[in-house]
Amino acid sequence: MPTNVFSPPALEPGTLRVFPLGGLGEVGRNMTVFEYEGKLLVVDCGVLFPEEHQPGVDLILPDFEPIRHRLDDIVGVVLTHGHEDHIGAVPYLLKLKRDIPLIGSGLTLALIEAKLKEHRIRPFTLTVTEGQREQVGPFDLEFIAVNHSIPDALAVAVRTPAGLVLATGDFKMDQLPLDGRITDLRAFSRLGEEGVDLFLVDSTNADVPGFTPTERGIGPVLDQVISKSPRRVIVASFSSHVHRVQQVVDAAAANGRRVAFLGRSMVRNMTIAENLGYLNVPDGVLIDYKKAQDLPDDRIVYMSTGSQGEPMAVLSRMANLEHAIEPGEGDTVILASSQIPGNENAIYRVIDGLTKLGANVVHKGNAKVHVSGHAAAGELLYCYNILRPRNVLPVHGEYRHLMANAKLAQDTGIPAERTILAENGTVVDLKNGVAEVVGQLDIGFVYVDGSTVGEITDADLKDRRILGEEGFISVIVVVDGKTGRVVSGPDIHARGVAEDDSVFEGVKPKIAAALAEAVQSGTRDNHALSQVVRRTIGRWVNQSLRRRPMIVPVVIEA
Amino acid sequence: MPTNVFSPPALEPGTLRVFPLGGLGEVGRNMTVFEYEGKLLVVDCGVLFPEEHQPGVDLILPDFEPIRHRLDDIVGVVLTHGHEDHIGAVPYLLKLKRDIPLIGSGLTLALIEAKLKEHRIRPFTLTVTEGQREQVGPFDLEFIAVNHSIPDALAVAVRTPAGLVLATGDFKMDQLPLDGRITDLRAFSRLGEEGVDLFLVDSTNADVPGFTPTERGIGPVLDQVISKSPRRVIVASFSSHVHRVQQVVDAAAANGRRVAFLGRSMVRNMTIAENLGYLNVPDGVLIDYKKAQDLPDDRIVYMSTGSQGEPMAVLSRMANLEHAIEPGEGDTVILASSQIPGNENAIYRVIDGLTKLGANVVHKGNAKVHVSGHAAAGELLYCYNILRPRNVLPVHGEYRHLMANAKLAQDTGIPAERTILAENGTVVDLKNGVAEVVGQLDIGFVYVDGSTVGEITDADLKDRRILGEEGFISVIVVVDGKTGRVVSGPDIHARGVAEDDSVFEGVKPKIAAALAEAVQSGTRDNHALSQVVRRTIGRWVNQSLRRRPMIVPVVIEA
Repeated sequence: MPTNVFSPPALEPGTLRVFPLGGLGEVGRNMTVFEYEGKLLVVDCGVLFPEEHQPGVDLILPDFEPIRHRLDDIVGVVLTHGHEDHIGAVPYLLKLKRDIPLIGSGLTLALIEAKLKEHRIRPFTLTVTEGQREQVGPFDLEFIAVNHSIPDALAVAVRTPAGLVLATGDFKMDQLPLDGRITDLRAFSRLGEEGVDLFLVDSTNADVPGFTPTERGIGPVLDQVISKSPRRVIVASFSSHVHRVQQVVDAAAANGRRVAFLGRSMVRNMTIAENLGYLNVPDGVLIDYKKAQDLPDDRIVYMSTGSQGEPMAVLSRMANLEHAIEPGEGDTVILASSQIPGNENAIYRVIDGLTKLGANVVHKGNAKVHVSGHAAAGELLYCYNILRPRNVLPVHGEYRHLMANAKLAQDTGIPAERTILAENGTVVDLKNGVAEVVGQLDIGFVYVDGSTVGEITDADLKDRRILGEEGFISVIVVVDGKTGRVVSGPDIHARGVAEDDSVFEGVKPKIAAALAEAVQSGTRDNHALSQVVRRTIGRWVNQSLRRRPMIVPVVIEA
Repeated sequence: MPTNVFSPPALEPGTLRVFPLGGLGEVGRNMTVFEYEGKLLVVDCGVLFPEEHQPGVDLILPDFEPIRHRLDDIVGVVLTHGHEDHIGAVPYLLKLKRDIPLIGSGLTLALIEAKLKEHRIRPFTLTVTEGQREQVGPFDLEFIAVNHSIPDALAVAVRTPAGLVLATGDFKMDQLPLDGRITDLRAFSRLGEEGVDLFLVDSTNADVPGFTPTERGIGPVLDQVISKSPRRVIVASFSSHVHRVQQVVDAAAANGRRVAFLGRSMVRNMTIAENLGYLNVPDGVLIDYKKAQDLPDDRIVYMSTGSQGEPMAVLSRMANLEHAIEPGEGDTVILASSQIPGNENAIYRVIDGLTKLGANVVHKGNAKVHVSGHAAAGELLYCYNILRPRNVLPVHGEYRHLMANAKLAQDTGIPAERTILAENGTVVDLKNGVAEVVGQLDIGFVYVDGSTVGEITDADLKDRRILGEEGFISVIVVVDGKTGRVVSGPDIHARGVAEDDSVFEGVKPKIAAALAEAVQSGTRDNHALSQVVRRTIGRWVNQSLRRRPMIVPVVIEA
């Protein structure tokens, strides 16, 4: 993972140390640690979703190794907002130490508390709101409203005697947000005048020119599509995107339709959002999906999960007719969501399935039903010019995003040597207004697979990739312990290699002959005999099938 | 695969039968069979590239089953153009019968001949050109120029007493193509006036509104990027895209740079294209890549393969510093290509790798360096209005593309019952100006894996998916044939499941106990004992690890 590991020096008094444990060189598992005078503050603690080269993995966590033995030093975890890539790893951190305090806005804490409940953890929490200032250990924290694709997101300013750091979390600068809660540029200006020593800034859309369009532009499109739909309407989006759901609810109500939520996370999150006042549903609009099925087709909008083509989510199951609600001729399906890179094929499989059932599928490819939640290049330039930070550390993004963000900073006059291109585990010290890389920790990926955390290694994933591409051949031979003579076998079992195991009949005598020869020349050791088996069948399968399955030779003495 | 299999009736005299064997419900392996009076004409014979749910597969072929026993009836294979998804399966068809004649344009035949040479096959060929008419068995063929992302593409009109069929192949309607060879709408008009009974039409971009921009627009962008590049320029694109390469060559020459081709298919195809006059390289511009490394950095453009992030292609190897040419600070890389769905992650990994090395990466996301090769909705409307076909069979595309194309046809006034939404194996009969579905053949995917064709089944792929996601546990027990007592084992070997096999120590006594109990209650049969092993370890791994690896129990008598 890190290319150039070296240890940081002992932290000097009066110096602030910052080291990201996740979110750099990737989109997900955001987590950054601040250290001052022996105390640690964590900002965000999210998960990363696996890609195709990480088969079978459920989730990927930040590597807690650098702080694992310092859990008592953690004075708090600030959660900037409630998305999985910022809060999803909190349960795994709290399993190491349950009483680490969580700090965040009302909605953010409500979402993490619901998640922790499933892990049977009741956390210590401190609810904060924009404008609020809190001293947590040696860290003087100020929270600032930012606009994002989930309500109640916060940036955090961290003051220590070493200087002022501003971490944006995820944000954009929609100037007409649905809830009127804009990214607080007045607060940014005040911080800029005070002097921002280090700026940790969202890079997700730094390579997108211009400005992210307003969320408000989606409502009229939804309204128009719904008003023209002759039968049922099914909208899929992210289950945390309260404002998107709000617009669906509003468009449904305006067209005399009721709304039913589908999918466990959608139901859970919207219940929370409505209870806390983030989602406003007119009386009599919501309906349970079971009762909704009795309504006339043109009186209902289903709001569901599954916009990324996830095979177990509601929308995929509908497309496969594995859900109580079966889409058909005249129904309209709206995917009011992005296409996260890597998910395109799964999304298009769902779109094709729904189209085949007769549904009219509206998605971002053919209508303006999605806008991003992240600031594009134009917005980031505003931030740099308002803040004029002394040092910049682009975070949250693949390398090309971090690089693009650094270039934007430099375009506004920040010197190249003051824009730090870091990776996960890079240790940055801030001292006398200068931020510098002082170390690179050796950290990696922590895989959650089933009930295990960190037990599946990269070597296991490599094995899985080989197995998944080529299958395996297991060859079992029982030999007489004294004579080395073959007593039983070779028995060959293969999966994913050939239609049936009879193709291996021809190689069995070759294996037996190779073993006999080895025994005759004095080989008795099981491992050496296994290697003889491996070489013989390996050569055969490569020559006869032109393939390289995994070979598992087992020689048993009996 | 096909949802509703039923046999077509015997073909009546005077009726034309059409059945696609590939290319419907997918983008790739295009192949359509025409049958008249006992003779078969094949149009295209391409391959499909596997998706992530088809792991380890090299290529997917059309299912030749419906024509396998009628190879002697095939009077010819028309190849509309030289792309892999139209010619790639020809070697596999010719392996069944070597003397089936191939019919196509000069470039198309040169490309397939080069490919067949690798398979040691010298085919019978008939070179045709636009405007040409040829009687092939009972089929009266007319070839019509079409514009596509490879030169020398042809549509084919097939006349029999049953009527006139027009198959477009892949095409678009660039009105200012680089070689001046436009899709021949005058010929389309003539056919329309004669009366087109059935129209087989490219659906790839039917759901894209408007018009595909002209290829000519890319040249100035390439010129500008190259002129501003301080050091080396590396351009990656499809190795068959002669016009794209022509524009790179022209922009390089205009900027005083020489061009070196990189990658086996790029070198091979461009040699063919230059020899046949499709690619015009000014004297002294081409240079061997080994010599190119001696040139000053600002005097060279490398033209390479790998624009889809293919791990073994030149561009990926450059990004991983596994190629003689190592990109660095100040170099410019241009991906002048589309992002084929499913390849995005691989492409972005290459972009990130190159960015990290210091290269400036230009791609379709940040510059106009690619246009599609297929007609968008606006162009298709022109075709429908010029041709006014009696029946339409949209081909070449996923279901949503076929559906969008059918809708366009209907928008121009073709009745819904005359637009046929077919899948692979759908049998369509044309008689008295009416085309109707008369059968659905039971055909599937034919996987090429290593040297085997059609031996890997969907069941094998399912095994591979399980192995790739979860790994496997093999449990080997040697029992005494007479007493059923365990003589050796259980021996447990696992891959992709746990970091080391010691985690299984705890379950071994459980397996031994379960076997002893089974033997005591009279079980001797090896299969039944295997099932005892499978159940015991399956339950254990599910409860203790929450996973479901493949379990391979082996009970051996000795």
